[in-house]
Amino acid sequence: MTSAEKQLPPIFPHRHLLGIEGLSAADITALLDLADTYVEQNRQVDKKGSVLRGRTQINLFFEASTRTQSSFELAGKRLGADVMNMSVGSSSVKKGETLIDTAVTLNAMHPDLIIIRHASSGAVELLSQKVSCSVVNAGDGAHEHPTQALLDALTIRRRKGRIEGLTVAICGDILHSRVARSNILLLGAMGARVRVIAPPTLLPRGIDRFGVEVFHDMRKGLEGCDIVMMLRLQLERMSGSYVPSQREYFHYFGLDYEKLGHAKPDALVMHPGPMNRGVEIDSAVADDINRSVIREQVEMGVAVRMAVLDALARNLPNELRI
Amino acid sequence: MTSAEKQLPPIFPHRHLLGIEGLSAADITALLDLADTYVEQNRQVDKKGSVLRGRTQINLFFEASTRTQSSFELAGKRLGADVMNMSVGSSSVKKGETLIDTAVTLNAMHPDLIIIRHASSGAVELLSQKVSCSVVNAGDGAHEHPTQALLDALTIRRRKGRIEGLTVAICGDILHSRVARSNILLLGAMGARVRVIAPPTLLPRGIDRFGVEVFHDMRKGLEGCDIVMMLRLQLERMSGSYVPSQREYFHYFGLDYEKLGHAKPDALVMHPGPMNRGVEIDSAVADDINRSVIREQVEMGVAVRMAVLDALARNLPNELRI
Amino acid sequence: MTSAEKQLPPIFPHRHLLGIEGLSAADITALLDLADTYVEQNRQVDKKGSVLRGRTQINLFFEASTRTQSSFELAGKRLGADVMNMSVGSSSVKKGETLIDTAVTLNAMHPDLIIIRHASSGAVELLSQKVSCSVVNAGDGAHEHPTQALLDALTIRRRKGRIEGLTVAICGDILHSRVARSNILLLGAMGARVRVIAPPTLLPRGIDRFGVEVFHDMRKGLEGCDIVMMLRLQLERMSGSYVPSQREYFHYFGLDYEKLGHAKPDALVMHPGPMNRGVEIDSAVADDINRSVIREQVEMGVAVRMAVLDALARNLPNELRI
Repeated sequence: MTSAEKQLPPIFPHRHLLGIEGLSAADITALLDLADTYVEQNRQVDKKGSVLRGRTQINLFFEASTRTQSSFELAGKRLGADVMNMSVGSSSVKKGETLIDTAVTLNAMHPDLIIIRHASSGAVELLSQKVSCSVVNAGDGAHEHPTQALLDALTIRRRKGRIEGLTVAICGDILHSRVARSNILLLGAMGARVRVIAPPTLLPRGIDRFGVEVFHDMRKGLEGCDIVMMLRLQLERMSGSYVPSQREYFHYFGLDYEKLGHAKPDALVMHPGPMNRGVEIDSAVADDINRSVIREQVEMGVAVRMAVLDALARNLPNELRI
Repeated sequence: MTSAEKQLPPIFPHRHLLGIEGLSAADITALLDLADTYVEQNRQVDKKGSVLRGRTQINLFFEASTRTQSSFELAGKRLGADVMNMSVGSSSVKKGETLIDTAVTLNAMHPDLIIIRHASSGAVELLSQKVSCSVVNAGDGAHEHPTQALLDALTIRRRKGRIEGLTVAICGDILHSRVARSNILLLGAMGARVRVIAPPTLLPRGIDRFGVEVFHDMRKGLEGCDIVMMLRLQLERMSGSYVPSQREYFHYFGLDYEKLGHAKPDALVMHPGPMNRGVEIDSAVADDINRSVIREQVEMGVAVRMAVLDALARNLPNELRI
Repeated sequence: MTSAEKQLPPIFPHRHLLGIEGLSAADITALLDLADTYVEQNRQVDKKGSVLRGRTQINLFFEASTRTQSSFELAGKRLGADVMNMSVGSSSVKKGETLIDTAVTLNAMHPDLIIIRHASSGAVELLSQKVSCSVVNAGDGAHEHPTQALLDALTIRRRKGRIEGLTVAICGDILHSRVARSNILLLGAMGARVRVIAPPTLLPRGIDRFGVEVFHDMRKGLEGCDIVMMLRLQLERMSGSYVPSQREYFHYFGLDYEKLGHAKPDALVMHPGPMNRGVEIDSAVADDINRSVIREQVEMGVAVRMAVLDALARNLPNELRI
């Protein structure tokens, strides 16, 4: 079987995955459908596929991230790709090489897929314009983290059977959260009703134009919700701005059973991790296997990333030029 | 061939390898027999097998270790597994995630095998209770380091033809040594006579109950020994306690030809590495190819770890749930 | 097919690649010819070969290097090898293990190929004498960096159709540059005319005995050149010695269009990376796709390293003993 014969039919019309912005409901549905098949594959003894055999994937992480990098690494390896992790910050960047030179250099080594995480909003899109391969945004500043939104959507769809018509509350540090932004875009595109619940100091200006309902009170905001999506309090991003006391924050915005009682009786609890237990979420709620789907989100993460890598690779040309 | 058909028959009845404690002589013999076949495989041009093809192995090292991590990495790769190294300490743990959350998160990615090293005794067993895959202890505090004891046993058995009935002296920093502990348990289970030789300050209380003979003098302790097992002086673990001068330590407990002369003429010298040359062992003795089997221990290490990974994978269920 | 049958015919008579010194023009040509085939392979969808299947490659980098280590890693993986990166400095070396013990330990794990970068000239050759596998020098101090010279030669040969008879100017920090040294040797062996252009403070004593022409003025030195090879100003290696101001350095020795105008109209611009833009090279010149072949050098790097790994593996014995 030649390489050309191996090429599978396209499932969506994009060269990169830079954000949820720009994806149609049909694109999202296609990715989730493909991801469903990978959930099953990952539960088998033999988790190894071959759709990326002969392909090269580079994980270029300018910010450290145990779970996201691991998830992409396993996704690529289980599809048969050669995966290379780049510990940037420790090397050329220290030697004074520019961001773009790093990307252009890697591109000249003929990767098929580059997964990029960067502390600055927009950095991933900038780099995607300089390379001939496909780029996946694994989180850029406070901008987007599209695979997180996709894995959240997959988790919801498998549990609730649909996304359309559900009421989803996204709670906490919206201001610093690329996860919130990507989720608002995806849930909106798929027809869910989205609420954000946060203190005014942790909300970005102009949040209203995204078509979300804004609440500053957890109990009111959770009323009648199907999904309670908690966010990590990103203390490490708060230099200079107002930093709430963790005790006070938990009192008003931490999810405990009392506040959760205001949501629907079968409402699911989600968190992108890593959790600050006792800050944005009570430990007992986080570990409640009847309500919390936090572990399942991690499981869905690998499957969704396999679907994204597979989908992008299908659109690559047969021969890459640098 | 389906996955179920590929499954090889079990060789021992354990889901995890947390320590030598709990292993029978038959379990140990089964692992050493399997390891013997991998010694041969590793000497060939084509060192690649497929018994772990489609499996995922995660090396989760909370303490850095060049040789142990490398040995497990090569072992997994040569069996055909997808191997992922986790540099913990640099990422989520810094973000405040708990040890257990890290393990539970990784488990949700459906690894088959997690290899864990941790600075605290008992941490590996704790984590093993939280995951659905198999766990191998790659060293936890001063507790156990079972694959080191198994590789030492394999080295001895291949050189001496047996373990039973041999007299083995374990010399030096017994107090801080998980290697000593695992070796005492294994050698005892296999019917060797074990002596420990150390200054009183470097011996744990209650060492007698392990059925070992205790010596404080190298010359007396080495008398008639078949195996001289030197330990690394773990200066990095001695904060707060009595730290001997290296010069003085070498004088009384460092292995040189004069002291070695008290052992049997064909006694073998072992060391788990990395060595402090001139502290616990004289360089000339360490490099003496007629007496020292230190390099061979490293070679046996990869083979023993392949046997352990293979043996554990045979006992995994056909479908893993998180 | 057995392992013995898989063995391909040798293309050159060396066990290690420690430097360009000792290679004949025929050896270099054989490597470049083989590399040409890998350039094509790397441009395909399926970049995966199998000539190193079952082999183990260890990248042992005592100095961090994003691009060189990545290039070797991809080279090995695309040939089907199991590749293991060693982050030395973080582990055993800290525990006091000697350089040689580290190499001997790794060798006992039966790698077929060890790629070594080290800050000291001669360290790689020393290590090569202690191991039974093949060693590739990935840069040792100010001594040699042979795969860089080979990739530069491949880039030149593909662009100019030949190396013999060309005039090549190597410009800048010759004193601290293993790249310069390896290139001078290779270009000399292949019949090019080599010039070096540098301030007297950045030239090693006795440079004349390499058969190069020495210039201290860029305009005079570039006159009639076919190839302008810029070097990185290695500020990180200049502790203690004279450090030029970057502004002054660019004025006299930085490559801009005006100075480049003195070379032949079709002269190519090269740089081993990472670049200090505005120090040794003007950004516009570096990015000029009609003159600069800097990206192509990176592409050739992977192909040349595949050729080197393939060539060395062909000469390995059928069974390795430690």
